[in-house]
Amino acid sequence: MVNETQHSCSASSSSRSDGGSSSGSESSKDNSRCSTPVLDADRHERLREKMRRRQDAGDKWFSLEFFPPRTANAAVNLISRRVLQGRRGEVFDHMGAGGPLFIDVTWHPAGDPGSDKETSSMIIAYTAVNYCGLETILHMTCCNQSKDDITGHLQKAKRLGLKNIMALRGDPSGEEWEEEVDGFNYAVDLVKHIRNEFDDYFDICVAGYPKGHPEAESYEADLRHLKEKVYAGADFIITQLFFRPETFLKFMKDCQAIGITCPIIPGIFPIQGYHSLRQLVKLSKLEVPQEIKDVIEPIKDNDAAIRNYGVELAVSMCRELLDSGMVHGLHFYTLNREVATTEVLKRLGMWNEDPRRPLPWAVSAHPKRRVEDVRPIFWASRPKSYIYRTQEWDDFPNGRWGNSSSPAFGELKDYYLFYLKSKSPREELLKMWGEELTSEESVFEVFTCYITGEPNKNGYKVTCMPWNDDPLATETNLLKDQLEKVNRRGILTINSQPNINGKPSTDPIVGWGPSGGYVFQKAYLEFFTSSEIVRALLKVLRKYELRVNYHIVNVKGENITNAPDLQPNAVTWGIFPGREIIQPTVVDPVSFLSWKDEAFALWIEQWAKLYEEESPSRMIIQYIHDNYYLVNLVDNDFPLENCLWQVVEDTFELLN
Amino acid sequence: MVNETQHSCSASSSSRSDGGSSSGSESSKDNSRCSTPVLDADRHERLREKMRRRQDAGDKWFSLEFFPPRTANAAVNLISRRVLQGRRGEVFDHMGAGGPLFIDVTWHPAGDPGSDKETSSMIIAYTAVNYCGLETILHMTCCNQSKDDITGHLQKAKRLGLKNIMALRGDPSGEEWEEEVDGFNYAVDLVKHIRNEFDDYFDICVAGYPKGHPEAESYEADLRHLKEKVYAGADFIITQLFFRPETFLKFMKDCQAIGITCPIIPGIFPIQGYHSLRQLVKLSKLEVPQEIKDVIEPIKDNDAAIRNYGVELAVSMCRELLDSGMVHGLHFYTLNREVATTEVLKRLGMWNEDPRRPLPWAVSAHPKRRVEDVRPIFWASRPKSYIYRTQEWDDFPNGRWGNSSSPAFGELKDYYLFYLKSKSPREELLKMWGEELTSEESVFEVFTCYITGEPNKNGYKVTCMPWNDDPLATETNLLKDQLEKVNRRGILTINSQPNINGKPSTDPIVGWGPSGGYVFQKAYLEFFTSSEIVRALLKVLRKYELRVNYHIVNVKGENITNAPDLQPNAVTWGIFPGREIIQPTVVDPVSFLSWKDEAFALWIEQWAKLYEEESPSRMIIQYIHDNYYLVNLVDNDFPLENCLWQVVEDTFELLN
Repeated sequence: MVNETQHSCSASSSSRSDGGSSSGSESSKDNSRCSTPVLDADRHERLREKMRRRQDAGDKWFSLEFFPPRTANAAVNLISRRVLQGRRGEVFDHMGAGGPLFIDVTWHPAGDPGSDKETSSMIIAYTAVNYCGLETILHMTCCNQSKDDITGHLQKAKRLGLKNIMALRGDPSGEEWEEEVDGFNYAVDLVKHIRNEFDDYFDICVAGYPKGHPEAESYEADLRHLKEKVYAGADFIITQLFFRPETFLKFMKDCQAIGITCPIIPGIFPIQGYHSLRQLVKLSKLEVPQEIKDVIEPIKDNDAAIRNYGVELAVSMCRELLDSGMVHGLHFYTLNREVATTEVLKRLGMWNEDPRRPLPWAVSAHPKRRVEDVRPIFWASRPKSYIYRTQEWDDFPNGRWGNSSSPAFGELKDYYLFYLKSKSPREELLKMWGEELTSEESVFEVFTCYITGEPNKNGYKVTCMPWNDDPLATETNLLKDQLEKVNRRGILTINSQPNINGKPSTDPIVGWGPSGGYVFQKAYLEFFTSSEIVRALLKVLRKYELRVNYHIVNVKGENITNAPDLQPNAVTWGIFPGREIIQPTVVDPVSFLSWKDEAFALWIEQWAKLYEEESPSRMIIQYIHDNYYLVNLVDNDFPLENCLWQVVEDTFELLN
Repeated sequence: MVNETQHSCSASSSSRSDGGSSSGSESSKDNSRCSTPVLDADRHERLREKMRRRQDAGDKWFSLEFFPPRTANAAVNLISRRVLQGRRGEVFDHMGAGGPLFIDVTWHPAGDPGSDKETSSMIIAYTAVNYCGLETILHMTCCNQSKDDITGHLQKAKRLGLKNIMALRGDPSGEEWEEEVDGFNYAVDLVKHIRNEFDDYFDICVAGYPKGHPEAESYEADLRHLKEKVYAGADFIITQLFFRPETFLKFMKDCQAIGITCPIIPGIFPIQGYHSLRQLVKLSKLEVPQEIKDVIEPIKDNDAAIRNYGVELAVSMCRELLDSGMVHGLHFYTLNREVATTEVLKRLGMWNEDPRRPLPWAVSAHPKRRVEDVRPIFWASRPKSYIYRTQEWDDFPNGRWGNSSSPAFGELKDYYLFYLKSKSPREELLKMWGEELTSEESVFEVFTCYITGEPNKNGYKVTCMPWNDDPLATETNLLKDQLEKVNRRGILTINSQPNINGKPSTDPIVGWGPSGGYVFQKAYLEFFTSSEIVRALLKVLRKYELRVNYHIVNVKGENITNAPDLQPNAVTWGIFPGREIIQPTVVDPVSFLSWKDEAFALWIEQWAKLYEEESPSRMIIQYIHDNYYLVNLVDNDFPLENCLWQVVEDTFELLN
């Protein structure tokens, strides 16, 4: 036919070529129709681009350095949620909230840094990227290591989604270090190696020494070494700590004078205690200025006083650096502690605890997940578990959830993994969830206390549940009264959201995404309940057939639903200026069956196993696990009043 | 890392295997994440599945037979829009609105039926599928044709997106026909050939003769031939016309008795005139029953009376067939005329002019486009042109528009194509758009008359424009007063929509999609205007920077926009029970530049060329083409009152 032959190669992009667009922005590099960056340009930029953009915009930024913890327990404190009465861990999540441009994780040659141990540098960095959503630099040292070892580490880092390396020499082991011919003798060798073997894949950071490296022949010689590292392919420089701002500013000018033009980020060390200062100074072979010693020595046993002084000193030094106009970012040596650094940043006005979320759930920084913008609602309180169970996926849903039957979810059997496990110790959990259960009703009571925030019979607050490591979300608080009522009667809720009909995207409770938009939700309720209640519920649901979608499943997988064609139901969406629609959470019938496995298993893994085998308490939990149903309900009529409470009311009425 | 190795092959679908879903529906066959059927299962079924589903649901349906027109002009009447004062063509669009299950197009061996001519059976069928969105069966005859010819036709049909073939023998040419050894002698040979060469790709229909084929040895022998055709792979049967319901019902029972179990659809011929009846009867070698002759002969010169009788007769026959419980669908021999068949169907209550649209634009039935559910708003009034310009695409956007930079739009230079061209004759257009233009203002006047529906100075209504073959859409009518005001002042609007904040999806004016949903729109306004107005507009738009997105471009492609990152802006979306969000129209900055070429070209192709070269009228249109800008504006704040009118007001004020 005429048109076919004439246009068989009609991919002429006359539309693009004729006429300069004055919008100034280039189009996405990604050609695939379904993977356009929509909400968050940030997720698509590499670190050096982000740094450049922030600098161009005149935004001041900060970054945070951590070392890998020595013990698994300490790793948990750094990364996972730990809810104790009044005390919490999760340094990464807390400090991540302040908005660092990146964090970095040091390389401890003695700690098997490239291994799969939960305390290895590699795994801590991977966890920060993948599970905590933090842009992360992994340190790597090269001295005394073979080319193959180094390449292996780099390949692994790449495989795990790490995109940034801090290339260091490291401290030679043994007293007398000799250069190896063809070996890695200096950081510059590592920089060259990375660029040779991995081209432009990694962003590379190198260390600068404002006072010169202690082993360098001279300050000038050290500057030349630094220039070599930059010319070999490093993208930016982070400096060793220093005590006086003028030290850094002189160093920076000297760098620029010899042609080093990349960003140079001052390393800031807020003094946090007498001993940590002494140790660091010894390691880094730096000298503490007399004026600082004079202040510290008299108060060396007063930790609080030293910390206050340290904060004061750091704030004033940072101010001077920023005021110089030469410094755009500050790098903090945190020593894995939150307080001092957070305090300094807050006083500088740089702690940017933006309550606005780019999406309703915490995004991962793994490069594979850059485009991900839809998830099933079920894992709302267990995002790390969701990331874990989808870690083998090659593509992540974007724009639409689509048909989730392939690929499948990984099984969750590794409850021991430090980033998945609930970290409250057994005794704490027993206090919250009951030393001894006497009936199903005593389980209802635990759920009810969790909802109300009131102490249980023994005076303990229930601040977490097997399905939720955190106290009730602010949003769920909107539903508190109703939730309390239904839990008391055996509708054991584990997830819910109110309906929202177009609130501003900046709403402090339900808002997400860029400002100027509107967010929407369909009401959602998910709970465990007995088969008796399910029978009544199903009768009631007939009245709501066109309005309410439901999925009801027991541990054996017996599944009752009215969802058409196993299609997902979008339950959260947002409309933004100049964008396509974003729908970040769906109720997906297929995923629900994977979630069901996890939700039921948590009864046993987290709760039943607290008790002796054969004990009545354990048998009660086991009974619930074996006989209850997991139910989810969606009210599709989001502009009307949420009818799900009425559904539950009607069910109770029918039972009476 | 531990988890990596443990789960490297964790595609265990425990979620699917354990536990029977009682939802009863199977999941989509399509594994791709971005191509889930969302709104309309219909678009994913093949004809025989649709037929089965309608039968199972107890729905009665109908189908319509057309022959390829002899002249290009007649093809236009069948397919394209032709707006004259009070008279319209577009039979396909009109009769498609009544909801036929399919149409079929006969094969005219004398009319070069497989060619690229606009009157060929092949192209008419292709156009019906691709441009009119109709499920279509292409007839094909095999007698006197080579295997290669037949295969070539079938391959072409497949390539053009046709999925259904009516396999016929056809009338032998020449007086004395002899069987060819290894040739195609009977329809059954063609059925076998299709199944051999194309497996299950096509749905195959064959013809049944309620009175036996006139050339068959006997009625019984003919039934056996029919059974052979079905056993060779035919999916259903359409019968030759007949005059008495009992003829068909007997035939059907006889078929069933010998083991023919596929659907058998009675062919209904509403008598429309004396001559057409005589001709058809002659061709089909049927005999008109005496009781019919007795009625017709006396009124043979009264067309209206014969048609009334024909309708009456057809209605009563159809009622009897349907009441028998054996008939689920009726096939109409339309003779390419609307009136009689439409009347019969309306009286049977089977004309189902559902005002609800599956999407806000008319979908194509081309298999490639099954998943398509997003289009740029620009072609809203020119859907056939959009389909034409995207015909080379292999994938169609689904769920999200994404990045449209690839693939590109085909150029539109084939204004002569019968399914693209405005079909009103030059004289009509001159009466509407002015025999002689004297100034830009006389052009403004044409736009204004089109909006208001009032006659122009010479007493003619302006019922179409180069950018719009139809009178103003009902929806646009909502904006009529404002549109009139701005067109009068030189804001020459060609596309607009009001903002909608959650109207029911069943709303008769702005609704679309399944019932129970809510539809939304951002206000949109697109117009041509002078550079003077653009300059003022740009100043005004600064005040609306965060609220209004704009794209302003002239024919040379000089483009001014505030769209972030060339991202598309969704301007129509819908929320439905148990579904993901649908967003069928977007304002896409990249496509806009392709649309711009077309929109500017229409000034010249459709309007300027009505006048003599060098004539003042032509020069006025040429001036506008060369100097005006095409502007689109989106008000992102859809819950508030549309601010675009205020933007235009402010612009006029600034100019005063």
